[in-house]
Parts: sequence; structure tokens; C-alpha cells
Amino acid sequence: MDKTTLIAFVGGWALIALAIFLGGAGFGAYIDIPSVIIVFGGTAFVTIGQFEGKDLSNFTKAFGVAFNETKAIPTAEIIIKIINYATEIKKNGVMSIEPKIAEEDDPFFKEAMNLLVDGTKPDVVESLLEIKLEHMENRHKTMISMFGNMGGSAGAMGMAGTLIGLVAMLANLADPAAVGPAMAVALLTTLYGALIGTLIAGIIESKLEQKHTTEMISSQIAIQGAVMIASEEQIGNIKMKLNAILSASAESAEA
Amino acid sequence: MDKTTLIAFVGGWALIALAIFLGGAGFGAYIDIPSVIIVFGGTAFVTIGQFEGKDLSNFTKAFGVAFNETKAIPTAEIIIKIINYATEIKKNGVMSIEPKIAEEDDPFFKEAMNLLVDGTKPDVVESLLEIKLEHMENRHKTMISMFGNMGGSAGAMGMAGTLIGLVAMLANLADPAAVGPAMAVALLTTLYGALIGTLIAGIIESKLEQKHTTEMISSQIAIQGAVMIASEEQIGNIKMKLNAILSASAESAEA
Amino acid sequence: MDKTTLIAFVGGWALIALAIFLGGAGFGAYIDIPSVIIVFGGTAFVTIGQFEGKDLSNFTKAFGVAFNETKAIPTAEIIIKIINYATEIKKNGVMSIEPKIAEEDDPFFKEAMNLLVDGTKPDVVESLLEIKLEHMENRHKTMISMFGNMGGSAGAMGMAGTLIGLVAMLANLADPAAVGPAMAVALLTTLYGALIGTLIAGIIESKLEQKHTTEMISSQIAIQGAVMIASEEQIGNIKMKLNAILSASAESAEA
Amino acid sequence: MDKTTLIAFVGGWALIALAIFLGGAGFGAYIDIPSVIIVFGGTAFVTIGQFEGKDLSNFTKAFGVAFNETKAIPTAEIIIKIINYATEIKKNGVMSIEPKIAEEDDPFFKEAMNLLVDGTKPDVVESLLEIKLEHMENRHKTMISMFGNMGGSAGAMGMAGTLIGLVAMLANLADPAAVGPAMAVALLTTLYGALIGTLIAGIIESKLEQKHTTEMISSQIAIQGAVMIASEEQIGNIKMKLNAILSASAESAEA
Amino acid sequence: MDKTTLIAFVGGWALIALAIFLGGAGFGAYIDIPSVIIVFGGTAFVTIGQFEGKDLSNFTKAFGVAFNETKAIPTAEIIIKIINYATEIKKNGVMSIEPKIAEEDDPFFKEAMNLLVDGTKPDVVESLLEIKLEHMENRHKTMISMFGNMGGSAGAMGMAGTLIGLVAMLANLADPAAVGPAMAVALLTTLYGALIGTLIAGIIESKLEQKHTTEMISSQIAIQGAVMIASEEQIGNIKMKLNAILSASAESAEA
Repeated sequence: MDKTTLIAFVGGWALIALAIFLGGAGFGAYIDIPSVIIVFGGTAFVTIGQFEGKDLSNFTKAFGVAFNETKAIPTAEIIIKIINYATEIKKNGVMSIEPKIAEEDDPFFKEAMNLLVDGTKPDVVESLLEIKLEHMENRHKTMISMFGNMGGSAGAMGMAGTLIGLVAMLANLADPAAVGPAMAVALLTTLYGALIGTLIAGIIESKLEQKHTTEMISSQIAIQGAVMIASEEQIGNIKMKLNAILSASAESAEA
Repeated sequence: MDKTTLIAFVGGWALIALAIFLGGAGFGAYIDIPSVIIVFGGTAFVTIGQFEGKDLSNFTKAFGVAFNETKAIPTAEIIIKIINYATEIKKNGVMSIEPKIAEEDDPFFKEAMNLLVDGTKPDVVESLLEIKLEHMENRHKTMISMFGNMGGSAGAMGMAGTLIGLVAMLANLADPAAVGPAMAVALLTTLYGALIGTLIAGIIESKLEQKHTTEMISSQIAIQGAVMIASEEQIGNIKMKLNAILSASAESAEA
Repeated sequence: MDKTTLIAFVGGWALIALAIFLGGAGFGAYIDIPSVIIVFGGTAFVTIGQFEGKDLSNFTKAFGVAFNETKAIPTAEIIIKIINYATEIKKNGVMSIEPKIAEEDDPFFKEAMNLLVDGTKPDVVESLLEIKLEHMENRHKTMISMFGNMGGSAGAMGMAGTLIGLVAMLANLADPAAVGPAMAVALLTTLYGALIGTLIAGIIESKLEQKHTTEMISSQIAIQGAVMIASEEQIGNIKMKLNAILSASAESAEA
Repeated sequence: MDKTTLIAFVGGWALIALAIFLGGAGFGAYIDIPSVIIVFGGTAFVTIGQFEGKDLSNFTKAFGVAFNETKAIPTAEIIIKIINYATEIKKNGVMSIEPKIAEEDDPFFKEAMNLLVDGTKPDVVESLLEIKLEHMENRHKTMISMFGNMGGSAGAMGMAGTLIGLVAMLANLADPAAVGPAMAVALLTTLYGALIGTLIAGIIESKLEQKHTTEMISSQIAIQGAVMIASEEQIGNIKMKLNAILSASAESAEA
Repeated sequence: MDKTTLIAFVGGWALIALAIFLGGAGFGAYIDIPSVIIVFGGTAFVTIGQFEGKDLSNFTKAFGVAFNETKAIPTAEIIIKIINYATEIKKNGVMSIEPKIAEEDDPFFKEAMNLLVDGTKPDVVESLLEIKLEHMENRHKTMISMFGNMGGSAGAMGMAGTLIGLVAMLANLADPAAVGPAMAVALLTTLYGALIGTLIAGIIESKLEQKHTTEMISSQIAIQGAVMIASEEQIGNIKMKLNAILSASAESAEA
């Protein structure tokens, strides 16, 4: 479970509930089924229309990714793993690492190490893994843009709902007492749109971006490591290069 | 038929109708012919002015693309096709694939394979197909930007229409009872602009982008495959490279 | 005459006139000389300040470009021209094309062909034409951004004008009957700003962009053609490469 | 003096004064010292916080750049200068140009020519000048973004000021006659923010960008010229290359 | 202490206090605990959800960076340092600089110089430091985008809070006297959102960007210097290259 995503969802929505409670008009004033249908339904339909079936089917999976710990190995850990595998291979040959690889979680790192076991040449290792990374990147970016677009669509549907409500209200101003409540209801779709955009789509989009960056960095280190091992570079050189990455992640004159 | 585009259009507009119905002012309150003319007509004229005749003539074709299944071959399928053609060529020579190629649907893949039959050299295959891909990309981007611009123009024309209506209303406040309905009508152009931008242009623009990405990926795989076959690479190598792409599309630590 | 630009201007402004007519307040309600001065004058001054004299002097020329057919040769035509010149040169030598070149309209294509007549080496042809293209691109982008900025400035000046009008109105609420008309006038600057941004600057900016893209593509084909002829490539190869471009412009699995 | 910047400032602000005069509420209605302090002061403090001391100290210098003619040599002139120096060097040797260089105004061109006098090798000339150009570009972009950010900050501070004014007004609605003037004052900060953003920061930002582009082009021509002279290319070749640039600046099928 | 950041915070917030004081409604009218909770709390939760734990833990550190002088060595100083180390190494050998390096503050420059002491080859020095720089850049950009996103989230939460307040007010218009104060409170969340976005997140984001640029430039000079020393280039050449950078930072035809 990715705690920060969970905290944000629970905390964010609890705050909204608190704000409504403190507003004193009661929760009922904020729930209007037609408004819910227009904004949530409208956003769903626009998103369905904007993307293709193969990507839409990954929608719940993307939610899962945002709410779960990334399987990508942290920088510090993957560096240690690569150095260990490199040392092991120098000592006992490349076949000796096969049983350990089977236990790795990150599928990209696993494939990188399996290419070594298969005795693949350094340049082939690099080109294969780069191609794979590029296609992974394409797929991730589609999912990230799905949530980005969703935020925009929710805002637009919210505004359309408010305009529909305002027109209905303005067309019939006979009963002055009804104006306030009618306008209150009209504003609800804009509120729903803003909340979907900020507290759902906005969080998931950014969290997926962060996890994408983390996975890209981890995968690039895996590629560099696999290529260095396949090129039979000296353990000392491998360590030095990987440690430069490690130190960059831990310190700097700035943040 | 691209089901998701159809679902979005039918569902999205049905939701708007539902919202209007539930609003209780009747459909009549939401239909104002002058407003329709200003926003739809204005958006059409701006779009006509922004693009050139040769691109405008593809407008309905672009709609067709968004509403139809892409002819681009899915990643998994094109990889199998390339491996089959490569195997066939190794066994029976390059001429043996000619009859099968004639039955291919994707024109880019067809041309890539035809270059092999013509005995074109690997580097010529690559440069020819890259040039073709680049020109296809230019044309696609023009169509995508046409729908992107259309959304913006619809919003701007909607706002202009509302301002024209407000000025008319404000210039003559003598009859207080007329203010509400007059303002309701003034808001209709903004509503129309938002709906065109979200439920028409917004959907088509993004769907064309998705199909463009799918076609680019499929075409790039076709290029890689054709170049590998033309270079007489080993079937094992071709399989390994293409399978790296395939696995990247099916799994990853992230979504 | 570029018909689409003309249709957009005539049709767009006619629609606005129609909307005003249908609004029933009369054209007089939409014309306020001080508002015209502030928005049109303000936009002009801001644009003058943002650019340099040498670029501002091209302002009316840019209008002319948007309203006239591009002199750039269409893809299909330039390809035929290049193949014809290449064939002519193979048959009768490079000097034989000189009289025909003198009749070409597109100055870039003309220069490309003249370099062949002068017997310039392929790499010099390429570097000369690339440098020229780059400088043309710089100049075009400045003009495109001039109209882009103009749209933004018109919107900002319109808003400033409305605020000035609102402040005047609010400072003196003594006569309730004057509030409506005063606010109507205040809104006129925002309307003018939106119309300049959409129906003038927005159209010209996008049309210049389209013509720029068309000219860039045509010029790049001219460069490729000239380099291939200067390198004395075989007519068959030249045809094959240029036809790949041609087919890409005419078909694809997408729009 | 850069006349267009001056015309824009004088003309733009005169138009605003005219608009206020024609509005009839008197200049006094548009001047509110606290509002001036909040918007101008707030924008100043935000800008100070966003940038570093070394860049802030160039603020008035950047104003000077926007209001003065660029020292960068126009394309046509720098090309003639380079051809003259190249011819002079061929005739009388590299030392002969030293006295003339001392009289050049553009420091970048001066340094480029001085490297020739020092007998620097072509590749060193290129790498030295490229490094210098890159660092100049960094510095320019910081200044341009300072004015870009300033426009945004002015708008945000204007909005904050209006909200502060509205809250004060709404908290005390006891005296209806005070509502109008109070709201008028509240709107002044938004007006000030829009005017700073459009008629000050917006003009300076774009003018600096234009002068930056002009200087970059002029410097790149200086580099190309210096490298060609250092490589002892033939005068004919130098002329041909530089004239390609010149013709690109003077004509094209588009604007 | 970075004085400009401090001046901006103290001065900016003092101005807001002054504006409130001059508004005459008293500070009490601007403080509403529920509004504070919604906007500050909501922004915090959204930010927590958008980023990962490892980056969130650097949040206060990033504040510290914005408020403290950068440890990155100024361009002029680092160039002198490099020339001194280069001269020292030529005279007394590479080991002679080891004690001085231990006293350097900038960790990147320190590591670059230590690689020289270790006798690392020029290309290894370059690739190691480039990798390190790239990873530093990734980390910086994450922190910069955290403050950028925060500004946007604060605005969105402010708008949501205002909508919640408006709905509560509109649902109960029975007491006309309560409308003004209720609306005043509703507007407070928008005000808070704008102030967080401008006077906190907006300042920190831009200041971190500036310090990032400064550190990148300083680090790139350190890399160039270290590589030149490791390649045993002549002191004269090293000086000339570094001085080109120095002169670019001090003068130019533009700002």
C-alpha cells in the first residue's frame, strides 16, 4: 500500500466533509443526484471517447499502481544488487546467478539479468532493453495523460452543468425564494468538477508520473549495469560508476 | 466501428439531455437558433480561416477515423506477421510472400513488405519508410490541431455570443421580467461553446492522437522488422528484438 | 486569393453582425468610439512595443500572405518538377534547365535549382539551403508570434477597459437607470478584445502557421531533390524516394 | 533609443488616461494609494524573492536594453563586415585588421575577430565562441523570465487585493451607499495588475526576447564567419554562404 | 541566509497585513479557522498524494535551500579555483592539491577534483560526473515541480472552499443581513489559495529553479575544468576556455 496516496484520499475528502459540516447547511445541501450523474457520468463518457479500449481497460490497474508501493527497486538497492551479481559472476560464472534472478520482483531488472545468463552480447542487451523501455514509456504516458485529461473534462462538465442549472433558474424567476437554492444546486456541478480534478485525477496523475520517473531511473540503472557486466568491465569501474549515481541521489549543494 | 467513440457521443449527449430534463425548464429553454448559428457557424468560419483547403477537405475523413476501428495492426499481431514473413522468406525466398502481402490492410506495412519483395537494400528501406512516416506524422498533426483549435474557437465564440446578449440585455433594463430570460439566452452560447469543446472537439482530438500514436508505433515496428529482414538477420535475433517490444506492452512494474 | 481566409473573415464578421441584429438592441449599442480606441489602439501600441521595427514593417505583408495563395509549390507538383529536371539534366546536361528555372515562382526552389546549374557540390548545396531555410524559419516564427501575442494583448486591453468602465460606473451609482447602459458599455471592450483575438489574430496566426509548414515541407523536398541531383543519383532512386513522400501525403491508415 | 518601445509606453499609457478621462469619473477615482502599494509593492517583493541578487541587480539594465537600440549588428551589415575582413586578411594578412576591430561596437563580434588576430585554430574559435554564446543565452533567458514572472505576479497580487477589498466591503454592508465606491476601489488592484502585466512586463518581456533572437542570429553569423576565415576558406565560398543567409532574410514565398 | 527570499517573505506578507489594515474591516474579518484548515490542509493532502515519501521528506530541506545562500560556487570563483588547481598540479603534481580539496564546500566540485587525485582517465571523469549531474537534475526537478503543483492545488482548494461556502449561503437566504458576511467568509478560501500560490509556493518554486540553474552551470564548468586537467591540456588553453565563460557572464550587447 502506498501510504501517501491513501493519506491524501482519506485526508482530502475528510477535510471537504469537515468544511461542509462547518458550513452549517448540512450534507444534504451538497448532494444532488442529477449533478452527480452529469459530472461523474460526463467525465466518464468523455474519457471513454478520448482513449482506446486497450488503454481504458488499464484504468483500474492504474488506480492500483497509484495506491500500491512501486515494484521498481530503489536506486540504492538496485546498485547493490548489480554489484553483487557482477561479483558473483566474476567468481562463479554467469550461470551461478540464475536461481537468485528467479526471485527478483521487478520484471525489467529480471529480464536484464536473464539476458546476461543467456550470454547476450553487450550491444544487443542495450538495444533490446532500450526498445523495451521506450515501449513501457509510451504506455505509461498514455495512462498519465488519461488522468490529466480527466481533470480537464471534469472541470468542463462541471461548468456545463452549472450553465444548464443557471439557464433553468433564470428562465423562471417567478418565485424569488427558489432562486437561492436553485443557484446553490447549479454551483454543485462546478464543485464536483473541481473536486474530481484536484482530489482524484490530480493526485493520481502526479503520483503515476512520480512512479514512472522512479521506474525509468531504476530501469536505466539496470540497463547500465547489465551492459557493464556483459562487457566484462572491472568490478572497480562498475562500482565507481554506480556509486556516482548513488551519491547524486543522496547529496548536493541544493535540495 | 470504434465503440468507445460512439459510446462517448451517445452517452455524453444523452447525459446533457437528461440534465436539461431534470432541470425542469424544458428543452425549449436550451434551444435558441441565433445562438446555435453564432457558435456553430462562428466556430466553423474560424476553423475554415485557420487551415488550408487541402486540410479542411479531410475534416469529415478525420471524423470517420475517430469513429472507426484503426486499420493499424496491433503490436502483438504485427510482430507475429513479421516473424512469419521472415521465416517464410528464409525457407522459400522473398518472392514467396508476394501473394500474402497483397491481402494486408495496413498500407504502411504493405509498402514495407513490398520493398523487401523488390529487393531494396536495408538502408534504402529504412530511409524511404522514415521519410514516409515523417510526412504521415505532419499530416496527422495538422488534423489533430484542427480539432484542438476548434475547441478553443468554440469557447471564444460562445463567450462573444454571451457578451453580445448581455449588452443587449443591459442596454434595455426597462422590463425587469425580461432580464432573467434574456440572461438565460445569453448564457446559451457559452454552454454551446463548452459542449462543442468538450463533447465534440475534445473527444475527436484526443482519439485522433491515440490512433496516431498507435499507428506510429505499429509503423516503427514495421520499419524495424523490414530492415532486419532486408539485412538478413537471423530469425532468432528478429524474434528476440520483437518479443522485447511485445513484453513491454504487456507488463511492467507500473501501469 | 486564399479563399478560406476570405470566407472566414466575411462569414465570421457577418455572423457577429447577425447576432447583434437578432439581439434587438441595434448596432448603435455595440459601437462605442472610446472603447474602440482603447482596445484597438492599446493592442496596436503593445504590439509595437513588443516587436522591433524591422519585423513590424512586415505586418501588412503578413496579412497579405494570409489572404493570398501560397507561392510554395504543392508536394505532388514539386516532386514532378524535380523528376523532370533530373531527367532533363541526365539527357541534355545541367545547362539545359537554365531557361526553365527562370520561369519558376517559388524563390527557394529556384535558388536550389540554380545551385545545380552553377555546378555546386552536393554538401555545399545542402548546407547553403539548410542555412537559408533556418533563417526563413526564424523570420516566419517572429511573424506568427506577433499575431499570437496580439490576440493575448487584445484580451488584456479589453479586460482593462471593462475594469475602467466598471470603476466609473460603481463610483457613481446615484442614477440607477444609468447602471445598465454603463455596464453594457463597459462590457464592449471585453467583446472587442475577444473578437480581435478570435476573428482577426486567431485566424491569421493559424493560417500563417499552416503556410509556414507547407513552405517548410516544400523547401525540404527541394533540398532533398537538389542534393540527389547534385550527387548524380540514379533517376530510379530519386523517383522512389520522392514517391514515398507523395504516397505518404495521399494515404494512411489514419486521417 | 528604441523608438517602438518608447511609442508603446507613451501611447499605451496615454490611451489608458484617455479611457479614464472619457469614463467621466475623474482620475481621482482610479488612484488609490493602498492599492498602488499592494500591487506594485507585492509584485516587487515576489520578484525579489523569485530571483537571486546577481540577477535582480540587472533589472534596470534590462529596462535600458528594452528602451535602447540593440548593439547587435544587423544581418546585412555583419555579413558585409565579415566579407570585408576576410578580403582584407587575404590581401594584407591577419594583423592588418587589428586597428579596425578596435572600433567595433558589438563585443561578441569583436571577440570573434580578435581570436583571428591571435591566430586561434578554427575548432578552438568555434568551441570558445559557442561556450560564450551559451552562457550569454542563459543570462538573457533569466532576464526574460523575470519579466514574464512579473506579469503573472502582478495579476495574482491584483486579484488578492480585490479579494481583500471585497471581504472588507461584504463584512460591512450596513451603508448601501458605500457599496459601489468600495467595490470600485476593490477592482482597482485587478486593474493595476492587468496594466502592469500588459503595458509594462508584457512589452519588456517580448522586446527582450526579440533582441535576444536578433543578437543570437548575429552572433551565430559571427561564429560561422570567424570559423570560415580561420579555416582559410576561399572568399567565394564565404560570400556564397553568407549571401544565402542574407537572401533568406529578405525574401520568401511567405511573409 | 538568502536575503532576497527573506525580504520577499517578510515584505510580501507585511504588505498583505497593511492592505487588510487599510481596508478597515479588521484582521478578524480575514481569519476563519475552517477556511484555513480547508486550504492549507487540502493543499497539504493533495501534495502528499501527488509525490512519493522519499521526495516529501525533502520538503523542509527544499525550504532551507530557498532561504539559504547557495553552496554552489559562483562562476567567477570556480574558474579561478580551477586555474589555480591546474597550475598547482603542473608545478607540484596531482597529489599536492589533496589537502586543499578537503576544504572545498561544493560537494560536486570536491568530487570532480578528487577524481583527478585518484588519477581517473578524462573520459571516465566526464561520464561519471555527467551521470551524477543528471541524477541531481532529476531530484531538483521533482522538488521544483512539488512547489509548482502546490500553487495549483492551493488555488483549486481555495475555489472548492468558496463554492462550499456559496452553496451554504445560497441554501439559506432567509436572513438578508447574513448574506454579506457569509459571502465574505466564502471568499477567504480563494484569497488564501491565491496567497499560498503567489507568496509561498510561487516564490520557492522560482527561487529553487534559479539555484538549480546556478548549480548546473557551476557543475558543468567543474566538469569541463576537471576533464581539461585530466587530459593534461596546457594552462593557456584552460585559461582561454574558462575566460570565455567568464566574459560571457559579465558583458553582452543585450542585458
